[in-house]
Amino acid sequence: MITLMRRFLPILALLLPTAAAAAPSPSPSEIVAHAPNTAWADVPPDRLLVMTLADGAQVAIELAPQFAPIHTGNIVHLARAHWWNGGAIVRVQDNYVVQWAPRDEKAKPPAGFVAHPPAEYDRARQDIAIRPLGFSDPYAPSAGFSSGWPVAVDGDRVWLPHCYGMVGVGRDMPPDTGDGQELYAVNSEAPRQLDRNLAIVGRVLTGMEHLGALPRGTAALGFYASKAQNVAIRSISLAADLPSAKQPHLQVMRTDSPTFTDYLNARANRTDPFFVRPAHGVALCNVPVPVRLKP
Amino acid sequence: MITLMRRFLPILALLLPTAAAAAPSPSPSEIVAHAPNTAWADVPPDRLLVMTLADGAQVAIELAPQFAPIHTGNIVHLARAHWWNGGAIVRVQDNYVVQWAPRDEKAKPPAGFVAHPPAEYDRARQDIAIRPLGFSDPYAPSAGFSSGWPVAVDGDRVWLPHCYGMVGVGRDMPPDTGDGQELYAVNSEAPRQLDRNLAIVGRVLTGMEHLGALPRGTAALGFYASKAQNVAIRSISLAADLPSAKQPHLQVMRTDSPTFTDYLNARANRTDPFFVRPAHGVALCNVPVPVRLKP
Repeated sequence: MITLMRRFLPILALLLPTAAAAAPSPSPSEIVAHAPNTAWADVPPDRLLVMTLADGAQVAIELAPQFAPIHTGNIVHLARAHWWNGGAIVRVQDNYVVQWAPRDEKAKPPAGFVAHPPAEYDRARQDIAIRPLGFSDPYAPSAGFSSGWPVAVDGDRVWLPHCYGMVGVGRDMPPDTGDGQELYAVNSEAPRQLDRNLAIVGRVLTGMEHLGALPRGTAALGFYASKAQNVAIRSISLAADLPSAKQPHLQVMRTDSPTFTDYLNARANRTDPFFVRPAHGVALCNVPVPVRLKP
Repeated sequence: MITLMRRFLPILALLLPTAAAAAPSPSPSEIVAHAPNTAWADVPPDRLLVMTLADGAQVAIELAPQFAPIHTGNIVHLARAHWWNGGAIVRVQDNYVVQWAPRDEKAKPPAGFVAHPPAEYDRARQDIAIRPLGFSDPYAPSAGFSSGWPVAVDGDRVWLPHCYGMVGVGRDMPPDTGDGQELYAVNSEAPRQLDRNLAIVGRVLTGMEHLGALPRGTAALGFYASKAQNVAIRSISLAADLPSAKQPHLQVMRTDSPTFTDYLNARANRTDPFFVRPAHGVALCNVPVPVRLKP
């Protein structure tokens, strides 16, 4: 895909699909567009949240129970209890996070909810297969991808990094780790200093452009200065609880596939025609794992 | 500064300024708040652009003539010719860039304008003093800060990285390097693959929250699908041409100051009370050089 061209050029590019497809060095977007079906894995509907904002905009969030089982368990219980319906986005701090809260944080949570989850900030590496990034990570001894997720690794511990669109659990001061009622999504430059200090529970798969464009809050820490500024949440549902026609049927690229290796290499070494000098390197959070609608 | 707290807690934090100030490990924000006047350098008004959007929102952009003298020279000529007054933001691609264009790109540029500038994608290191980042950069052999700017270094070449808020020159395919009429600002995760492939000419010092919150374009590459969606630019002026009362009087932290060293160390090793585990590392673009209004 041609980037940063002037506004008139994309039309030209669209008129020349054959030439683009025949280029000797495909761009990352071209690799994704031509990925075989075997390179994709379905996102299970019981791990997928669908947030609908007041204006109808939808945001699909994949949960990561393999990294934060207690917190994501809480989130599933809350979604099934319609906990966030009528809640709101209460904070948008520029270059940091978008944060939302339920309608009534003091209400009695549903059965099965764990009021004080353990600090699921990282997990044992155990037998997790990791496809290495292949480049240095300023925040961890090594980094890579596992079962479709970016991961950082230090010895026998592994964790989900705070990349753009990753979703975590807001918390008070330690040792309270947050219970999952207030969640945040990273809206910009990866605040990796938060890694292993908060529980990452998932990531936005589609609709991040809606959260990213929300007005920034003007109170301290980017909270909205008045309730009137809050962005109302119509509902957050578990996809599995929606009629199939209303579920987003999404797929994430398998990070153990040869196609992902091609994509990663292309992200690190842009040799498609727009580029004059490939970087020969790439940051963990600058390799967003591709997502598509299931064909 | 306390981060990612629940919405009720910031009020408590504001009630306890003495306790926060007495903490043994100050946060980056606390270091900035207490920085002495000697740690700050004025931004010269002849290097500062003031963009005013249709709704009155202002964005201050510092130019970097030391890195792109021909391109920034063009931009100064264009600003003085009111080139972007009545122009518009024409593209907002989520997690990539915000791009704007003049009212009439076919008009005859003002005297002094260089139609085909050289590729000012990097420059000779020569005698530039660089304060090292101290941590690895996946995109360059080394990285650091020079005269208030983040820089990446490879041998005897040095360049400005594509961090959040950095401003560059849109271009067509090589060897045309863009003339400065169309500019972009990075609105998210640092697209460092663009380093040394485009001319970085400056950075947003204040007002990035306005550009960051713009609606995303729905056409290819994030261009707005119709002219009606474009975000009108009332004016872009050189601060030096404005009455003093209308100039933003800004200061950037000196990156060769002891205060900046403290700030950098604190960014890499968060030990203020919210944090349970410091990262012992930080990415170049995750150390935004502090900016303040001149007191």
